Amino acid sequence: MISVVIIGAGNVATHLFKAFSKANSITVNQWFNRNLNSINSYKNEVEIIDNLSLLKDADIYIIAVSDDAIAELSEQLPFENRLVVHTSGSVSIYDIDKKQKRGVFYPLQTFSKDAEMDFANVPVCIETIGGGEHYNLLKNLALSIGSPTKKVNSDQRRVLHLAAVFVNNFTNQLYRIGHEITESEGAEFDLLKPLILETAKKVQELSPYMAQTGPAKRHDKKTIKKQLKQLENKQHKDIYELLTSSIQQTHGRKKL
Amino acid sequence: MISVVIIGAGNVATHLFKAFSKANSITVNQWFNRNLNSINSYKNEVEIIDNLSLLKDADIYIIAVSDDAIAELSEQLPFENRLVVHTSGSVSIYDIDKKQKRGVFYPLQTFSKDAEMDFANVPVCIETIGGGEHYNLLKNLALSIGSPTKKVNSDQRRVLHLAAVFVNNFTNQLYRIGHEITESEGAEFDLLKPLILETAKKVQELSPYMAQTGPAKRHDKKTIKKQLKQLENKQHKDIYELLTSSIQQTHGRKKL
Repeated sequence: MISVVIIGAGNVATHLFKAFSKANSITVNQWFNRNLNSINSYKNEVEIIDNLSLLKDADIYIIAVSDDAIAELSEQLPFENRLVVHTSGSVSIYDIDKKQKRGVFYPLQTFSKDAEMDFANVPVCIETIGGGEHYNLLKNLALSIGSPTKKVNSDQRRVLHLAAVFVNNFTNQLYRIGHEITESEGAEFDLLKPLILETAKKVQELSPYMAQTGPAKRHDKKTIKKQLKQLENKQHKDIYELLTSSIQQTHGRKKL
Repeated sequence: MISVVIIGAGNVATHLFKAFSKANSITVNQWFNRNLNSINSYKNEVEIIDNLSLLKDADIYIIAVSDDAIAELSEQLPFENRLVVHTSGSVSIYDIDKKQKRGVFYPLQTFSKDAEMDFANVPVCIETIGGGEHYNLLKNLALSIGSPTKKVNSDQRRVLHLAAVFVNNFTNQLYRIGHEITESEGAEFDLLKPLILETAKKVQELSPYMAQTGPAKRHDKKTIKKQLKQLENKQHKDIYELLTSSIQQTHGRKKL
């Protein structure tokens, strides 16, 4: 049995709490948040606290708060030499106070407030310092909720977080631009939804390199020119040009 | 029963042939291609021809060739006043020779050579000139292969095709950049695949506006600065800056 304490009440903390609660080999000893209101609805399922001095023993303390608050919170923990991990993609493992055993338990996924998450679809990137004991404990924690795991170093974790910004935040903004463009002519964004899904499904099997198609890759100057003319928003034009150039950079010059 | 002739042998033509062949209420009378080798493997299922003068009667002639070849091919058809449609998102309906009844049957999806396609996931955008008879015929054709349909005008079709470039080609290029970035540190692109899929799934229910998260939306200057510094490729830096600015344009200034 692995015992954990959760610290924080955001999306990641909440999804982890739900997954841990369902797992047979995990006990959530306590759930801490500065503001009890956010976790009050769980008070019949777990001991909720808003005072760090009430923290009990546990195998793992999981700090799932905003990036900026991790260092300060870890300093305030009223114990030492225990395994304390954060869940951030970009914060250094050394931001955790050095009087603790430090680790990172980074779930590489986007969590929505309401939607349920199947942790089989949440790869957990694990970083620890030194010995394998803590790594194994964190790995077992992830496996207990059905997550695949990956041992990463700091550089790899940071690069995964950066890549996640591209494939999640930036991609979502391209969806948004698609939404704006279609609405401008009274067309329906809904018609694009199957294409959006298929585009994501395609790279589950094929590399993005192999999956590429379209006017940029084909160097179809006529269509590119027409489409640039269609775009009224200057920033959308810039994005069209830059990504077209990026595709052509990747796929090389047209063969004559 | 709706009878069709398919002209062309690319991905769209081939996927349509397969879907039509399976449908009970559709007969494919002939399949034309200039080069018979491309469709030779289907010769036991359908009459294949490489000579336009051999074309037989059909309710609908579907020209599924490259954009540039549509006008010329439609001119060469040895008959008049029949329903002739192309399948392109960007070519004008008027590129079809005016001696025919003209239409567009535009499947809004990305087709791979090998992967099977369920046409329930292929919205077909239909454009016709004048009366509803041809529209209804094309709509029934789409419904017979399980596709949802949408009546569009030329502007709407062009804008959908433009939006498709953003949500498909450009999105795929962001996946590619994610791939390059992760590999540069020996991290695994595979770890990003569930995130890619979830990002696409999220906007099936939520608007892209509501689905947005991350450092750009949060105006998290510290993370943005760190990530820009991480990027070694100048063009990747430009894309990061431009899409960050686009997200901030969409979501407004940070509330203080």
